[in-house]
Amino acid sequence: VQFHHRGYVSGEPRIEPAAGFGIDRPVELPDELDVLIVGTGPAGMIAAAQLAQFPGVNTRIVERRGGRLEIGQADGIQARSVESFNAFGFAHRIIDEAYRITHMAFWNPDPENPQNIIRISLPEDDPAHLSEWPHLIVNQARVLDYFAEFAQNSPGRITPDYGWEFLDLTVHDGPDAGERPVEVRLRRSEGTPGAGEERTVRAKYVVGCDGARSDVRRAIGRRLVGDQAMHAWGVIDVLAATDFPDIRTKAAIQSHDGGSILLIPREGGHLFRLYVDLGEVREDDGGAVRRTPVETIIERANRILHPYSVDVKSVAWHSVYEVAHRLTDKFDDVETDAEAERTPRVLIAGDACHTHSAKAGQGMNVSMQDGWNLAWKLGHVVEGRASEALLSTYSAERQVIAKNLIDFDKEWSTLMAMKPEDFDDPNYLSDWYVKTFEFPSGLMTQYTPSILTGGDEHQALASGFPVGKRFHSAGTVQASTGNPKQLGHLHRADGRWRIYVFADPAAPALAGTPTAALADWLAHDPASPLAATPVGGDDDAWFDVKVIYQQDHAEVNLNEVPAVFKPVLQPFGLTDRAKVFASGTVAGEYFDIFEERGVDRAGAIVVVRPDQYVSAVLPLTATDELAAFFAPILATSAPAAV
Amino acid sequence: VQFHHRGYVSGEPRIEPAAGFGIDRPVELPDELDVLIVGTGPAGMIAAAQLAQFPGVNTRIVERRGGRLEIGQADGIQARSVESFNAFGFAHRIIDEAYRITHMAFWNPDPENPQNIIRISLPEDDPAHLSEWPHLIVNQARVLDYFAEFAQNSPGRITPDYGWEFLDLTVHDGPDAGERPVEVRLRRSEGTPGAGEERTVRAKYVVGCDGARSDVRRAIGRRLVGDQAMHAWGVIDVLAATDFPDIRTKAAIQSHDGGSILLIPREGGHLFRLYVDLGEVREDDGGAVRRTPVETIIERANRILHPYSVDVKSVAWHSVYEVAHRLTDKFDDVETDAEAERTPRVLIAGDACHTHSAKAGQGMNVSMQDGWNLAWKLGHVVEGRASEALLSTYSAERQVIAKNLIDFDKEWSTLMAMKPEDFDDPNYLSDWYVKTFEFPSGLMTQYTPSILTGGDEHQALASGFPVGKRFHSAGTVQASTGNPKQLGHLHRADGRWRIYVFADPAAPALAGTPTAALADWLAHDPASPLAATPVGGDDDAWFDVKVIYQQDHAEVNLNEVPAVFKPVLQPFGLTDRAKVFASGTVAGEYFDIFEERGVDRAGAIVVVRPDQYVSAVLPLTATDELAAFFAPILATSAPAAV
Ligand SMILES: Cc1cc2nc3c(=O)[nH]c(=O)nc-3n(C[C@H](O)[C@H](O)[C@H](O)COP(=O)(O)OP(=O)(O)OC[C@H]3O[C@@H](n4cnc5c(N)ncnc54)[C@H](O)[C@@H]3O)c2cc1C
Ligand SMILES: Cc1cc2nc3c(=O)[nH]c(=O)nc-3n(C[C@H](O)[C@H](O)[C@H](O)COP(=O)(O)OP(=O)(O)OC[C@H]3O[C@@H](n4cnc5c(N)ncnc54)[C@H](O)[C@@H]3O)c2cc1C
Repeated sequence: VQFHHRGYVSGEPRIEPAAGFGIDRPVELPDELDVLIVGTGPAGMIAAAQLAQFPGVNTRIVERRGGRLEIGQADGIQARSVESFNAFGFAHRIIDEAYRITHMAFWNPDPENPQNIIRISLPEDDPAHLSEWPHLIVNQARVLDYFAEFAQNSPGRITPDYGWEFLDLTVHDGPDAGERPVEVRLRRSEGTPGAGEERTVRAKYVVGCDGARSDVRRAIGRRLVGDQAMHAWGVIDVLAATDFPDIRTKAAIQSHDGGSILLIPREGGHLFRLYVDLGEVREDDGGAVRRTPVETIIERANRILHPYSVDVKSVAWHSVYEVAHRLTDKFDDVETDAEAERTPRVLIAGDACHTHSAKAGQGMNVSMQDGWNLAWKLGHVVEGRASEALLSTYSAERQVIAKNLIDFDKEWSTLMAMKPEDFDDPNYLSDWYVKTFEFPSGLMTQYTPSILTGGDEHQALASGFPVGKRFHSAGTVQASTGNPKQLGHLHRADGRWRIYVFADPAAPALAGTPTAALADWLAHDPASPLAATPVGGDDDAWFDVKVIYQQDHAEVNLNEVPAVFKPVLQPFGLTDRAKVFASGTVAGEYFDIFEERGVDRAGAIVVVRPDQYVSAVLPLTATDELAAFFAPILATSAPAAV
Repeated sequence: VQFHHRGYVSGEPRIEPAAGFGIDRPVELPDELDVLIVGTGPAGMIAAAQLAQFPGVNTRIVERRGGRLEIGQADGIQARSVESFNAFGFAHRIIDEAYRITHMAFWNPDPENPQNIIRISLPEDDPAHLSEWPHLIVNQARVLDYFAEFAQNSPGRITPDYGWEFLDLTVHDGPDAGERPVEVRLRRSEGTPGAGEERTVRAKYVVGCDGARSDVRRAIGRRLVGDQAMHAWGVIDVLAATDFPDIRTKAAIQSHDGGSILLIPREGGHLFRLYVDLGEVREDDGGAVRRTPVETIIERANRILHPYSVDVKSVAWHSVYEVAHRLTDKFDDVETDAEAERTPRVLIAGDACHTHSAKAGQGMNVSMQDGWNLAWKLGHVVEGRASEALLSTYSAERQVIAKNLIDFDKEWSTLMAMKPEDFDDPNYLSDWYVKTFEFPSGLMTQYTPSILTGGDEHQALASGFPVGKRFHSAGTVQASTGNPKQLGHLHRADGRWRIYVFADPAAPALAGTPTAALADWLAHDPASPLAATPVGGDDDAWFDVKVIYQQDHAEVNLNEVPAVFKPVLQPFGLTDRAKVFASGTVAGEYFDIFEERGVDRAGAIVVVRPDQYVSAVLPLTATDELAAFFAPILATSAPAAV
């Protein structure tokens, strides 16, 4: 984070100066606004946090509940989410308080004594080290708290509007559509002041993050389609005395009579969660399974854990989680055949679009990636940085991810529900877990070619940065400080595009090298994407351009680095020297990102979207392609700086 | 951190439940209290933060200023301080916002063109990797903020009493001494409500952390003794445009005409500090140097930096820092020849005891170690855990550290003040810097034998944990989770002793091994230090006993680990499984603390004090020595649990 550059800040530097709609933001929900988010779950809160970085957008987020979530719901945080948390500034803090999964234990009936369970394997959770970030367990409520803090400290100063229930919406078109075509009916929730009162607001866009029973989804006529039957799990978050030796390790436990438990150790050192499989919910169940008493769940758990037992001292939370594999065909209000005519006005994200079991720990994670994917696009479109075409990419990109998730989760759930004797190989389940780990870690997502994702023609120039996948961070040495820096960790959720210039082998020079020529084009050519940057603000307000030289950091003289890599910041006209990187050994560790990520020594350009996915890999000389990539994305007329 | 074990906590787990004097702590300063700290600088704030972990002690901290420090003063944070910050729960947060020093640049006149400076070397800052923690730069105000937060979130709920000036004190003895023999006169500061009003309070102990002009020091009749003459530096914290290539690297710059600058890049990416040497202050100066205008300092800096220049855009802070090498002979109110008769009632810490240049960046750091050293001892004595003899060790331990610091700083200051041509070898200065780095990193402190520090008879059993030095953390694998854990990082500033049991090579067993025998003795023998632990509270309330097995973590069955390593916590009687460690490979990294720290495979006991210094290294069988070590420290009659 950079600070003090607009003058000395005494106190918490993470509180950015308010700007735009963040200045004197009214406590009351206004009648007219730009983006209305419905629901403060993970999808909604990440979207609000991201939009808080666009203070030119008047964003509000309404929630039916009277206040923050206090307990319960999901707790699995995949590596991709922790990467994302880092972009929102709270990865280290949440790691400090979370439980970290490094192993998974598999317990089966003892073949010699099937009433007893025994541990059959203890594989590592991420044996291939797909991410430098850990796999965590922490309550969903804490994740939401951190996003809330980020949103509140961001220039947009967004805080949730609690106690408002979404009722319905109408998307006006024709003459009365105006600038804010979406009319939304809201009602003050039960138990809040003015309960029952209704009002309408008008918005440019509405985002439905209102969970599996989404009213926004209903309002745009979309349906969750999939399995008929629900599956039920008894979920308990408990404090207990137990002799089960792996009580502090994530474990899949199968007993001889077909019962199964997923054990999730929780944050704080003592709490743990058990998912006890309650099987398919019968059609004539009539809510009976939902009324399963907590004692029954605990008793069932004890039967499965035999010869071990849990003596529950305190139940922090329990629930019967009923869910089916279901998916909606499109995540917005525009039918596929109407896409040429109009772009979306209402979009849905998270559980509103897809539901599945909790077994693979995906719910909160995929929902957050939905929300982030959508929010920066809304920010760009509403602020006038980008064309509305951007919004159509949201459903196109995320619906297929949800489809893959449901397929994966079905397979995993089926495997976990199988009886031990149905497997030829007792290690089949644990082997499958390890083999497929990239998927549940959230790192397998790969967007296919679109206006946001280029082709793989030049992939060989940077084989470690696959186009369409998330930018996989690697270590470099910052030239101006000699500090080791993970390049990807500097990518904050500030809504900016990243252009990484991996330099040719010549030393830094103001002219006469491919890198210098590219730098010159970027800074001065009217076709450069940077030409869209509003005048009067910071040079890097929209595009964060970084250069990585192959040389040792001690050999890089900042005075010889082209100006585009050293943007000038307002109001003092200071030079930012933080964007120049190199290689070298620091504190005994050698850093060379070219080697680590297979970047061609001739150099390359890597373009990364605001949500950290690689958009394009290009040669240093490919200025035409670079211009052509950004042309359809960027709005034709750039607005003024906020 | 452990939480939820007393029942589910929704929200920030770092806020511990209030206890003792922290429950309904009055806003107003009470008439009677236990420990009165004077001054909210680094020494005072770390002491308050530590004492907030002793809610049985009624601690208040008064400060003349009306509120928090906003800017200025020190900014260098050595590795030992970051280690300490971790114990107070904010290392990662402050690292995230600080500038990190990995290199130091040395600039001298160009021999061929002496009006110009050139870089002669760029050594690594910590080439020997003495600590896994970084060397940082961040404003003193932020350090104080984090300690304030910790104190506020701790069970004692301590917040500073701003706007009170210490005037004087009297230590009563004889019949009117009572339980609170120290009578303190305070006055409401100018500019605060009730300004000028005086009042007296009575305390058991007073700690003077009131800086170089300490009134508490004066009140106990101690004096700073040392150099007559003051040395002056012009200090500026600025935002500037500059072409000096190393502006983001810590640098020592010497010009041909004897001018010198110490350049300190600051947090946030743009701010930097220059110390411009203004030389010895003449006896007849009469405050003239103190009135040096900021323009003069900037002009002087520009002359030294030639051919480069700084064009200052904004001055965040500036000061003329005048200081001499001075030291007081004793840090408390008891003359050496009276030590047998009484223990201290008034103690002083930080700049109140020692002053020196800012060149080696030590001021804030050494002051914090003073404050921490003292505060846990006060906590133990006032709570009745320990005998008052503990308090005499404070001056004995810290005065010699201050003496060493002043000797070091004198040498460093002299070297930095020398003209380049006075050195035979142009690299002499940078070589000296690298060679002596252990000292300024704060890691060379080694306490000598006393009631708190054992001898080195058994040092060979754990050569990597030198008795008297700070416990040097190393990686292990936690058996219950398979998580890699830095053992030392788990040592929070909670006032507890640590007893690390490095197990013999046999597998964990409930009986029949030296480790099991020791565990049994610790748990059950009346001579065991653990016998002092109050009944009715957590088993590990006073002693945090951890075991490290040599085996791979997957082979350690928690059910076979002796009970003393799995303490029972209240109110639910839960078992803490977090204290059992082992070796193994996790995420591609191999952990074996026996190998890394030279621990004998036969096993060893390592005793570590609440402020992280190694007190003793003993064989597993040395129960008599262990009992003998703790006997003079522990109070004879243990109080009830708080
Ligand atoms: C009771 C429950 C238990 C769960 N248990 C587990 C579990 O054990 N494991 C697991 O992995 N996942 C679990 N999940 C799923 C997981 O929490 C979700 O996958 C994840 O929260 C999805 O995030 P989201 O933002 O899409 O929706 P949600 O987190 O569901 O958030 C939706 C939000 O919208 C609000 N809302 C709904 N309707 C309206 C309206 N009309 N107007 C205003 N606000 C509205 C809701 O109050 C809620 O805050 C559970 C979910 C629920 C609801
Ligand atoms: C103006 C100034 C500039 C400095 N500049 C540098 C620098 O550039 N580099 C560097 O390394 N070090 C610098 N130092 C020194 C560094 O800040 C100290 O070494 C460090 O702060 C020592 O910590 P301390 O807690 O012992 O005392 P201090 O930080 O000095 O704290 C003492 C506190 O006690 C309060 N106090 C004093 N008298 C009373 C009283 N009678 N009643 C109540 N409260 C009282 C003060 O207001 C202050 O808050 C500077 C110090 C000062 C005062």
